[in-house]
This record gives sequence, structure tokens and C-alpha cells, in this order.
Amino acid sequence: MSINIEEFYSVLASRMKASTIRETLKIIQRSNVISLAGGMPDPATFPAKEINQVTQQILAKNSACALQYSSTEGLPELRELILNWFSEDNKKLGLDNIVITSGSQQGLDLMSKVLLNPGDIVIVELPSYLAALNAFRSYGGEMKGISMDNEGVEVDILEETLTQLKKEGQKVKFIYTISNFQNSAGVTMSLPRRKRVLEIAQKFEVFILEDNPYDKLRFEGEPLPSIYSLDNEGYVISLGTFSKILCPGLRLAWVLGDKKIIEKIVIMKQATDLCTTILNQLIVYEYCRQNDIDKNIESNIKIYRKKRDVMLKALSKYFPSEASWTKPEGGFFVFVTLPEYIDVDVMFPEAIEEGVAYVSGSAFFANGKGKNTMRLSFCYPKEEDIEEGIKRLGKVIKKRIKN
Amino acid sequence: MSINIEEFYSVLASRMKASTIRETLKIIQRSNVISLAGGMPDPATFPAKEINQVTQQILAKNSACALQYSSTEGLPELRELILNWFSEDNKKLGLDNIVITSGSQQGLDLMSKVLLNPGDIVIVELPSYLAALNAFRSYGGEMKGISMDNEGVEVDILEETLTQLKKEGQKVKFIYTISNFQNSAGVTMSLPRRKRVLEIAQKFEVFILEDNPYDKLRFEGEPLPSIYSLDNEGYVISLGTFSKILCPGLRLAWVLGDKKIIEKIVIMKQATDLCTTILNQLIVYEYCRQNDIDKNIESNIKIYRKKRDVMLKALSKYFPSEASWTKPEGGFFVFVTLPEYIDVDVMFPEAIEEGVAYVSGSAFFANGKGKNTMRLSFCYPKEEDIEEGIKRLGKVIKKRIKN
Repeated sequence: MSINIEEFYSVLASRMKASTIRETLKIIQRSNVISLAGGMPDPATFPAKEINQVTQQILAKNSACALQYSSTEGLPELRELILNWFSEDNKKLGLDNIVITSGSQQGLDLMSKVLLNPGDIVIVELPSYLAALNAFRSYGGEMKGISMDNEGVEVDILEETLTQLKKEGQKVKFIYTISNFQNSAGVTMSLPRRKRVLEIAQKFEVFILEDNPYDKLRFEGEPLPSIYSLDNEGYVISLGTFSKILCPGLRLAWVLGDKKIIEKIVIMKQATDLCTTILNQLIVYEYCRQNDIDKNIESNIKIYRKKRDVMLKALSKYFPSEASWTKPEGGFFVFVTLPEYIDVDVMFPEAIEEGVAYVSGSAFFANGKGKNTMRLSFCYPKEEDIEEGIKRLGKVIKKRIKN
Repeated sequence: MSINIEEFYSVLASRMKASTIRETLKIIQRSNVISLAGGMPDPATFPAKEINQVTQQILAKNSACALQYSSTEGLPELRELILNWFSEDNKKLGLDNIVITSGSQQGLDLMSKVLLNPGDIVIVELPSYLAALNAFRSYGGEMKGISMDNEGVEVDILEETLTQLKKEGQKVKFIYTISNFQNSAGVTMSLPRRKRVLEIAQKFEVFILEDNPYDKLRFEGEPLPSIYSLDNEGYVISLGTFSKILCPGLRLAWVLGDKKIIEKIVIMKQATDLCTTILNQLIVYEYCRQNDIDKNIESNIKIYRKKRDVMLKALSKYFPSEASWTKPEGGFFVFVTLPEYIDVDVMFPEAIEEGVAYVSGSAFFANGKGKNTMRLSFCYPKEEDIEEGIKRLGKVIKKRIKN
């Protein structure tokens, strides 16, 4: 008699379903559809030649180290380099404030593992990053969504919600925010909002988990200080990554925070994957040492800014006046809101028929709303495909507009 | 007021402590001690030149893929190659029976995440692999230890224990075994025992998690069929890795099992790290395609067999007759048992003083026993250091022998 596997799943595992985005992406890959769905960087931004050069050097000179086990905390030289490059001026950070992770997704996983008991509440933006919500869910985190406007999360609602939850005796562990060029909304939180969110977190004594993958990909306007840099009391944990500024295939990211929390993350990481591949850490370190990553980022920004402009122009040209969308100052995404009577899930097969794909916005709404919204990404497709894709999508949407 | 971090830890995280082995290894690295403690492969076994060659090709020809995000399941070509190479003849396995993981530790983590509710019981060998115990603990698994003899786990005790646990209404999720050249005992489970363990698992309806990192590193004797290969009903999940036969620095391993459980592991892996680095997967795939990995393994076996022989000879020469130890037919470890009145933790500072390190066996005993045992590894140190290390350790032990 074969084993009945379903009976064996943990309570949390039995609740987890395949990511709709990844399943969607698989369908798209099989056809000739222009995809505005995925969040993959443009391979034209990968400095492949330079990466190849430093990799050759490392494997020729230092293979005994590069192919061996390594420390859970991560390569000290790489951590030092990140601290010097990314840390804001007003903080004195040491090596015990940073741990290297296998992509930022591991940072999200480890933070959840360190902080969440089943039933604990995580405050998230509406919409928010789907894979983060899944990480929180996988440890039994319960999402409480706060709506956003074009300055980011609505702080009055945030404060009311925390007051209410406190009254109900609910345990809130952290506020999750993507402060710059948010995935999926494309919105950047304003400076006054950043300060208020921090004040609120301190008042209610909850952590802030600030996910900052697109930080350096600002196309215009002045960079804003991270919430992490505004905090002096250990309330903010910051996630950064090389995925969007160098390449995602090396799976290299980091967590910055109070040394106590970093120490706990390291202990949990030991049990999770022992260590992040040291070859890849050496590659990034040597790449940064021998090349000017800021210059690479500048040229990446040019590529993405151009693509965003193509998308925004096409949206104005081909989308009906009943649709509205965000105008991101950086990052990868535009978020579109259609009239409430349009359900983008229902519309999806039609869009595929027409040869264009998007991600339904409802996937990003922890409260199940957003059925009339969609996330469009301009990062991966070619400029002409962005234009053509938006044209096709405009056609599909216009058919559904009621007069 | 600074945040009080300890109050925020999840119940499971607050229980987790730093691994004593890793902490020990850190101390050792700072001094001139001969270490018989770690389980790192000998860098002489890494085919660095060949790895460099294929890496150059990949980054020159295929960087758009090699540096990009990739599928959670892992590179299909690599999975196919592993299936052809590792799968036993009596099973028809497809791509949905295998998932690539970021080291076998991630396999242990994901299996725990998929199967364990806090309080669920895991049957483990006494002694067993420490980092596996930590993975199980990190999800609230409760360990129940079964003693071993020189044929592996004692099956009568296993059956009695499962009967008793069933009577008590306890939920046992799986039996964890390292069937070949066990870490830490060095013992290989005999064929009759393998069959009995499988029968017992099927009778009591519990999974077997067979961890097989040293499988191919057999120095002598006939290879035995894995428990996985004996099972036709989906009871066994098998973990394999390139860490010990190629190199650990690429962090590449795999899980084999029924397609339903693999599907669930993939969903959990999505939330954990999205995907394993595709560059490293391509490196291993191209290495195996362009080179004869079996030939590399043969030469590795020669290196490790020689080292094991040096260690066994030195043990006979320098250790007191009151000590006994295992004679592994493969793998990395020898397990030493001293008279019960010797506590190896108490002895440790003296050994360090004398210039030699080991891992206290008690770390591997889920039941807290084994204070008079130690794990010695012959994989990493040079032959002359193995001899000298055992000589020093023999001296320290002899001082404690009572007449």
C-alpha cells in the first residue's frame, strides 16, 4: 500500500499553494506571447565579460577556498564592501550587523523564521510583493494590509490599525515595506511618510522590515534616506540584493540590522543551508573590487529609464481614459488600475489570445482585493515589444469598457 | 528606547542555539591546532582546472541564462543527468521525481518544513548528523534516538519504539538515516537491516529520509542498494549531493522522491529562496558532460582511503587498549568510544593545549548521551597531520585512563 502523502504534511505546508505568478510564467514561456508579467532584469545589464574575467582569476588562484564550505555569516571582505558602499553616513556598522543570504528571498524566509509564530500579524502594503507574502504565510504569519497612495503607505490608517490590533491583544511582529519603487505598485514612499512609519513602529514597538532591492535604480529625482538609516534604536531590518544591480543568477543578497538579530539569523541560516556559495561571493567581491559597479548601475539605469518611458508613452497612447497607472521614478514596475467592473483574471485568457501577458494585481493584495488591477513590468521585454504589448493589451481592455 | 529583540523571537527561534561544532571550528581556526574536527573535503579532490574551463565557456556563451533567475525545480538537464547517473535500475524516475537544492542542508530544511508540526517525532540514529538534528529542531521536531551497532540502526529497538509511540498516540513523521559511512559513526547499514527498516516504515506508515552524501565514496567492499531503491511505494525520500564528490562550494544537492512530495518541496522552496543559483548548476552539468566524474571520484577515493588507513594505523599505535573505534568502509569519519569515566568535553581544553581538536560525540546524540565518545575526521588534514594529531590525542587520553 502506497503512503498517503497528504496526511503527512505539516499544517503550514498543507496550506501553501504554487505561486500563481510562477505558474503563469510557465504558461507564457510555452507560447509566443509578449510578457509584461515577470520581474527578470534585462540580461543586457549583466556585466558578463567582467564577471567571466574575475571568475577565471578566482578559480585559477583561489580554488581551494572558492570551492570549499564557508562561513554562515558570509565572506568578510564582501560584507565590509557592502557596509562601506550601502550603509548610510549616520550609522557605525560592523561586520556583526550584516549577513549574506542566498538571495533576498532567503532574507525574507529567515526573518519570518526568526520572528513569526503561527497567528502573528505582519503589516503589509496593499499591494505588496507576492513572494514576501508567501514567505510570511509559510510560517503562519497573518497578513494585515494597509492601503497606499502615491506617497506610499497611508500612515493614519497604519496607526489606527495598530491601535485596534493592540486593543484586540493581537501580536504584531513587523511592518513589511518596499520603500523605493515598490513591487508591485511602483510607488516610492515620501520622506515625511518614512519618518512617520518609523515613529509609529517605535511607538507600538514593532519591527520594520524594509526591503530595498531597487534602491540604486532611480531614474530621476533625489534619492531619499532609507527608513533603516533614520532609525537609531534597532527597529529596522534592511534587505539589499545584487539581483537587480548586477545579476540575479548568483543569488547574492544581504540583511542589515542590530547585531542581536543578525546573530539569530545566522543561527537559523546554519540550520537552513549552512552557508551561501562562496564562489559566487568571491565573484561579486572581485567584480566590485576590480570594476566600478556604480558605473554599471548608471548604464543600467539608462536602459530601464528608456523602457519605462516607452511603456508610459504607450499606455497614454493605447489605454482607455478609464484606466490609470503609476509613474515610477525607478525600479521595474507600473501598476494599472482599471474600472471596478473589469476583472483582470477573467480577461487574462483573452489577453493571452491577443498575445500579451500581465500579472493580475489581486495576487499582490493580501486582502483579496485588486481584481481590477494589474502589474506591468518593463524590465525584461525589448522596447518594441513593450510598445506592441501595451497596444495589444489596450485593445483587449477597450473591448470591456462600458460606455 | 531601543527595541527588546528577545521578546520578538518566535518560540522555535528562541530555542535555537549556535552549533557547537561551528563554534569549535572557529576557535580552532585561530590557533595552530591539528583539527580532526571538521568534515570539509580535501581541496586536492576539487577538479578546479576543469571547473574553470567549463565556467569560462558558460559565461562566454550563455551568460544571459547563467546570470538570470531560473526555475525553482532546477536545471532540467542537470536533473536528467543525476537521474541517469544515480537512480537505481529498478525505478523509472522522471523529472518530477527530483528537485535541485542549495546543498543537502536545504533538503533537510525543506523536508522538515513540509512534514513537521511542532511536537512531531523524528526517529534518528544514535549518534546522528548534528546539522540534521538542528534542521528538525528548528521546526519543532522532537528527536527519538535509536542505538546502532556495527550493522547500523538496531531494528528490534526501532520496532519496539514505534510500537510504543503508536500506543502513546504520538505522531511519528519520519525515520532519518545516513545509510552509508554514517556521519558521525562511520557505520554502514547492512542489506538485511535496510530491508527491515523499510518493512518497519511501511508497517507503521512513516517516511524514511535517507541521507546519502558519501554513497560514492566507498573504499572497499560491494556497494549496497540504497533503501530508496528497495522501496516501490513512496516511503523513502533520498538526499544526494555534489559536496563530497565534486566540491561543496557550489552548494548543489538534490532530493529524490515521489512526485507529490517533490511538488510540495518545490512550493516550499519557492518561498524559501526562489531558486538555486543557475550558474553553479550549469557548471556542474557542463563539468559532468565534458569530464568523467566517476574517474574523479575514483582518484578521490584513493586519497581518502589512504588517509583513513593512516588514521586507523595511528589509532592502533597511539590509542590505549581501553578505546575502541569504527572502521569505516568509506566516507570521512571514525567514531571513537572511550571508557565511560572519561568525559571528552572536560578533556577538550587539554587536547587543544596539546595541539589537537576533535568533536565531542555527545553533540551527535539526540538523547544527550555519548559523553565518552568523539568523532574524528580524516578527510581534510594532511596524512602527516593525521598521524601527529592521533599521537597527540592518544597522549591526552592515556593520561586519563585508570589502571
